[in-house]
Amino acid sequence: MTEERLIRLVRPEISVPELKDNTADTDRVIKALKKHLGIDLLHVDLSLIRELPYKLRDNNYKIYACIFQANNISELIDVYPEQARDIYGIAVDLGSSTIVMRLIRLADLKNIDEITFRNPQTEIGADILTRIHYASKPEGLKQLQDMLINEMNNHIQELCNKHNISLDKIVGISVAGNTSMTHLFLGLTPHWICREPYIPVINKFELPLKASDIGLKVNQRAILIVFPNVGSYFGGDLIAGILASGMARQREEICMLVDVGTNAEVVLGNGDWLIACAGAAGPALEGGVADIGMMAGPGVIDRVRIDPETLKIEYHTIDNLPPVGICGSGLIDLVAQMFIAGLIDIRGKFVPERCGNRLVEKDGIMYFIVVPAQESGTGEDLTLSQPDIDSLIRSKAAMYTILTTIIKTVNLSFNDIGKFYIAGTFGSYIDPKSAITIGMIPDLPLDTYVALGNTSIKGASLVFKSKDYYGEMLRIRDMITYIELNVNQEFMQLFSAAKFIPHTDRSLFPSVRQYYE
Amino acid sequence: MTEERLIRLVRPEISVPELKDNTADTDRVIKALKKHLGIDLLHVDLSLIRELPYKLRDNNYKIYACIFQANNISELIDVYPEQARDIYGIAVDLGSSTIVMRLIRLADLKNIDEITFRNPQTEIGADILTRIHYASKPEGLKQLQDMLINEMNNHIQELCNKHNISLDKIVGISVAGNTSMTHLFLGLTPHWICREPYIPVINKFELPLKASDIGLKVNQRAILIVFPNVGSYFGGDLIAGILASGMARQREEICMLVDVGTNAEVVLGNGDWLIACAGAAGPALEGGVADIGMMAGPGVIDRVRIDPETLKIEYHTIDNLPPVGICGSGLIDLVAQMFIAGLIDIRGKFVPERCGNRLVEKDGIMYFIVVPAQESGTGEDLTLSQPDIDSLIRSKAAMYTILTTIIKTVNLSFNDIGKFYIAGTFGSYIDPKSAITIGMIPDLPLDTYVALGNTSIKGASLVFKSKDYYGEMLRIRDMITYIELNVNQEFMQLFSAAKFIPHTDRSLFPSVRQYYE
Repeated sequence: MTEERLIRLVRPEISVPELKDNTADTDRVIKALKKHLGIDLLHVDLSLIRELPYKLRDNNYKIYACIFQANNISELIDVYPEQARDIYGIAVDLGSSTIVMRLIRLADLKNIDEITFRNPQTEIGADILTRIHYASKPEGLKQLQDMLINEMNNHIQELCNKHNISLDKIVGISVAGNTSMTHLFLGLTPHWICREPYIPVINKFELPLKASDIGLKVNQRAILIVFPNVGSYFGGDLIAGILASGMARQREEICMLVDVGTNAEVVLGNGDWLIACAGAAGPALEGGVADIGMMAGPGVIDRVRIDPETLKIEYHTIDNLPPVGICGSGLIDLVAQMFIAGLIDIRGKFVPERCGNRLVEKDGIMYFIVVPAQESGTGEDLTLSQPDIDSLIRSKAAMYTILTTIIKTVNLSFNDIGKFYIAGTFGSYIDPKSAITIGMIPDLPLDTYVALGNTSIKGASLVFKSKDYYGEMLRIRDMITYIELNVNQEFMQLFSAAKFIPHTDRSLFPSVRQYYE
Repeated sequence: MTEERLIRLVRPEISVPELKDNTADTDRVIKALKKHLGIDLLHVDLSLIRELPYKLRDNNYKIYACIFQANNISELIDVYPEQARDIYGIAVDLGSSTIVMRLIRLADLKNIDEITFRNPQTEIGADILTRIHYASKPEGLKQLQDMLINEMNNHIQELCNKHNISLDKIVGISVAGNTSMTHLFLGLTPHWICREPYIPVINKFELPLKASDIGLKVNQRAILIVFPNVGSYFGGDLIAGILASGMARQREEICMLVDVGTNAEVVLGNGDWLIACAGAAGPALEGGVADIGMMAGPGVIDRVRIDPETLKIEYHTIDNLPPVGICGSGLIDLVAQMFIAGLIDIRGKFVPERCGNRLVEKDGIMYFIVVPAQESGTGEDLTLSQPDIDSLIRSKAAMYTILTTIIKTVNLSFNDIGKFYIAGTFGSYIDPKSAITIGMIPDLPLDTYVALGNTSIKGASLVFKSKDYYGEMLRIRDMITYIELNVNQEFMQLFSAAKFIPHTDRSLFPSVRQYYE
């Protein structure tokens, strides 16, 4: 891969006008740049043409030109004097709940700063379907877009003030979000995304947009790169994930990428082929349904160990505070450890003789006391109910079934997978050993599993690195074959077989065998 | 030349979405159009992407696509339903005094209507230099641009109302004006145009602009074609003239094109080469300085004949009204006829014995009574002064010297010219015979001379005809070698020799010899 940046500064040789060479200012710059870059066509926006005569004369025609080049398009974004030629990009993880913005200095790709903030659209609706409904009316769509853009503008201004960077030095914004968020961000109606046959307004932007097209207050000509979608249920955030994982640059191994969440999005393949699917895995994997489940935060249990002899529960909380709840990774740990300790059986049902007085009944539902009131940060018992476990088992079974289905589609087996990438902040906390133990992911050598963290922000940042990464982003979109998960009889049979810990077919999980034989 | 329009409607086959083909709306349209047009890249503006889902569904995906294609750029301007698929362009002659707008139906290039109105910027300054000075401050430039754009918008709205055409059917605007007017139109500072070394902000727009970029209220994506300039003193109006003349498509003959006015702009060449120059010829040729000179209008003398025997002056006025003045072409006729009748000599001086009592003196200046008070529409004598004639002779000498200089530059003689095109509304009225008689233009066979009328509006209209004409416009700009007129000793000698009727070298004007031998 070339290290030539997607957006970069070049220093063309521009001659100073004289009577013998009275080429117009813009023509002069274009001519010099075409020669310098070896190109035939260079876009220059009228707004820059207006400013050029002043900018050139202020610097005696010695300027650095900020150029965007990709996909056979070349554009002059701005010109800068020698003493002020630092340019920046902003990478954005456009999450439906949380937005992350990273300020990047383009010359050396240094991450200057990063901020995380709540998506202001959550005021209208925490879940995306509420927002899609709200956006059905044009004024609703406009309002949702405005909320988002205003909040982004505030944070961009804040970042720039903090680091003493003028807004016109922000020359590129790269955004990765799911299909619905991308639509709301660009002011495109998401109305048909959630209605059969599930048609987005646009999936792929062949040509970059301008940040000013949607009111982002940065350089007026700043390039806006929006990660393409594959379809209504497979968005730019996943393309960013594939880009960040590097699997589309992989020529040897076959890789699998999973984004674990309410929706499980799965990609399989390498630099030669990519197939993807998405399916509902249920919010249980994120800890979203259990009574004590919550997002990772201070006092939240993220790791659990149970001594199989003493049955003593050891846990770790974020910031080592008294426990107030448990996050998804903690929940997976907890259930895996309970299974190993014999507190639940292969169906996930409590084993009363092992649980002893930790098991209590309330309104006909059985609860397991994970942390007694005297130890907890809430003053009450932190409990896990039988329905919580059932829900987690259905979710993990759905996940495993989706993985099985996609691998079968291409007549491969899990053993053919060289790297198994887990995307998403949540995914970073999952202990693969526990996830294998409950039969959520295949029983592969632990070093096969690679947690990637927030791949949306990583992918969004990566396009600034070089034209080739930008090209790869477009290529990934074109390469992917998206397969619809047919929830048919075969799927349901696979799903039923997976609703056990780890699985009805124990040969699939040899490393777990030790716990029940 | 292909007759494929620069902006045209095509009917791509767009499949209706279904579960098995849930391609996004925009991607679906782009894919169909790429296939239909055999292209790799198609621009679609975000504003259209926003509207596409509705426009497609309203017409069950049966739409006509309005496409701009030229210079390796393809753009989707809009989509229309079958029953409303008439599209229009507006050609504009952006004169510094007068603006002409022509509404053209693009399918058959029918001229639907044409209006002429005063350039509203004349309120700020009748002459362009006053406006350039006024535009030196950004707010002055903004004001001049706004005046112009607002007036144009009013007239566009008027035209559309009159013909019951919705504004979004105006998909292209083509504008030919001189370099300064082009700058004021686009909001580009003309400050350096009139200051050594005379640098325009831009000469050549490689890529068309959008009409909405400068606030023109037509289709938001309407293409704005601005005729390129060659330099500060050779503008897009002349490029339009060359395009309209067809000389750049001429492979056999060598052609000359002259735009006669205060500035004489001259182009020589054919499809293989073009050279151009411009020089001050003086306003006398347009009738602009004589006491009785005026723009063509009702009651203005446009043709004159003098009986060499009786010396009776016969004249024709526009609309056959009593005479109130004389326009440029009438003035050239008058002076030529006075020379033939012996009323002035070869130096242009009155011959008192021939003029008789038509010659009067006032404040030491001699006047010739062209129309006595009792015949005139003003109630006063219409007179021509000796200084008026002197001024005309200097102007015609300048013109002839410029023509001589350019023809000498390429080592040709006037006899090598196959066609001599006279551009401009004023040029249409000139009687070549009279212009030859006074020695303003070379003594070539009369059928060599072709008056083209308003070539700015003709050229501006012509680009809508096909991509090839658009390409020719760009090619002309690239082909032209502009030569600076060196007002050196040789030029001054040629000029002095031309300050006689028809010339000191009588052998240059054999057809005029009969009048003085």
